[in-house]
Amino acid sequence: MLKAVSLGPGDQSLLTPAALDAIREADVVAGYKGYIALMPEELLKDKEVVSTGMMGEVERARGAIESARSGKKTVMVCSGDAGIYAMAGLLLEILEAEGLLDTVPFSVVPGVAAFNAASALLGAPLMHDFASVSLSDLLTPWEVIEKRLRLAAEADFVISLYNPRSKKRSDHLQNALGIIGEHRAPGTPVGIVGRAYREGQDVRVVRLDSVDVQSVDMQTVLIIGNSATRVAGDRMLTPRGYHRKYDISRES
Amino acid sequence: MLKAVSLGPGDQSLLTPAALDAIREADVVAGYKGYIALMPEELLKDKEVVSTGMMGEVERARGAIESARSGKKTVMVCSGDAGIYAMAGLLLEILEAEGLLDTVPFSVVPGVAAFNAASALLGAPLMHDFASVSLSDLLTPWEVIEKRLRLAAEADFVISLYNPRSKKRSDHLQNALGIIGEHRAPGTPVGIVGRAYREGQDVRVVRLDSVDVQSVDMQTVLIIGNSATRVAGDRMLTPRGYHRKYDISRES
Repeated sequence: MLKAVSLGPGDQSLLTPAALDAIREADVVAGYKGYIALMPEELLKDKEVVSTGMMGEVERARGAIESARSGKKTVMVCSGDAGIYAMAGLLLEILEAEGLLDTVPFSVVPGVAAFNAASALLGAPLMHDFASVSLSDLLTPWEVIEKRLRLAAEADFVISLYNPRSKKRSDHLQNALGIIGEHRAPGTPVGIVGRAYREGQDVRVVRLDSVDVQSVDMQTVLIIGNSATRVAGDRMLTPRGYHRKYDISRES
Repeated sequence: MLKAVSLGPGDQSLLTPAALDAIREADVVAGYKGYIALMPEELLKDKEVVSTGMMGEVERARGAIESARSGKKTVMVCSGDAGIYAMAGLLLEILEAEGLLDTVPFSVVPGVAAFNAASALLGAPLMHDFASVSLSDLLTPWEVIEKRLRLAAEADFVISLYNPRSKKRSDHLQNALGIIGEHRAPGTPVGIVGRAYREGQDVRVVRLDSVDVQSVDMQTVLIIGNSATRVAGDRMLTPRGYHRKYDISRES
């Protein structure tokens, strides 16, 4: 038995009972060491832990699959949602490549993804159609990323940016904001959420032309409003549509 | 105190402790009657329940705000994630219009959205950039929806379709699939998930040119693969990128 299990943003209050049960039942817990560290020690007692640094993803996935194949109940834990930019896919790829799809029962436990968490802290930015784009060019050519940003901006999607910045690619975020800015007003609200629901949480709403790129790291999620998004108090609000078929005025 | 609370897909195993605590603490629970029905009766004991049918959204939101304003701890419960195509935005809009942003403390409890749930049941379709489009034209002109579908398809986003079909607009899904089909191969995998994690759950993976539109209702989520998405066993798999920088073969 192999499960890709979503830990959510990190706080226990957003860990689902399904995820908790899967971890409790497991013999082996595999995961990036930074995610393992988010889990209460009590949960890991008497478990075998397969943990590697960020660059050992394939080894970690293979280790988890070997463990499941040998009959041990195995979970691969992922921050956010295991099904969004996370390990569910790599596990499935390896199971397929090794011809193990029929041998190792595999499932995914969904969870609260990073942009669900960021959205909640910002107010209501995702009330209308949105696109999610990762700025990591480790596995995707930068030209493909640029094209997506351009078309997402042109389509007036609210845009959520994952992996916005690393030391190696410090100018990607600036470039991405420039591309989006060709289709959005300079005053478009941008939500910047660092370490959502974790120690050091940082939530800001700024203008598109005033994003402090230096303050953003890989643990940050940005949500860029569409043409209708506005600031309400200190929150970010995208109305539900363009028609005003619902009237919220008292006089109606 | 007013909270927009995410119930997740419906099953208690995907209801977060944060949501459960918010409901337990509340004096008043507001929500669409179909969502209230998903909650265990025990949770609603000794609570005031403000429930209306689907068309009474503004009234329901206003009722919840009045209740919070009068000092009662109030939650507005939403299926899926309260921050995604749900009630968080309408509450914020009304608070803003009534000048209550500083008077009524408002927050959102994030949760497992419909497409997180659908994705988990399908395998790993959301491993790469994706766009979410609602086919409901109640509040958005159909031309805007068509434009978004066209640009999302051109950008090679995995596309998640919300509100795919109702009695009033039975041809929207067919039209949407036609637009996407101009940019995707006929054999592109499409995941169709009805009533995820509820009684009557239905999970299918079909070809883009073989979607049975008649079998889809408003409670269904569709996930259309990108150009790299393939079927692995009975699952849907979108690889993590286009570069093959990670090598999963044994021989490497």
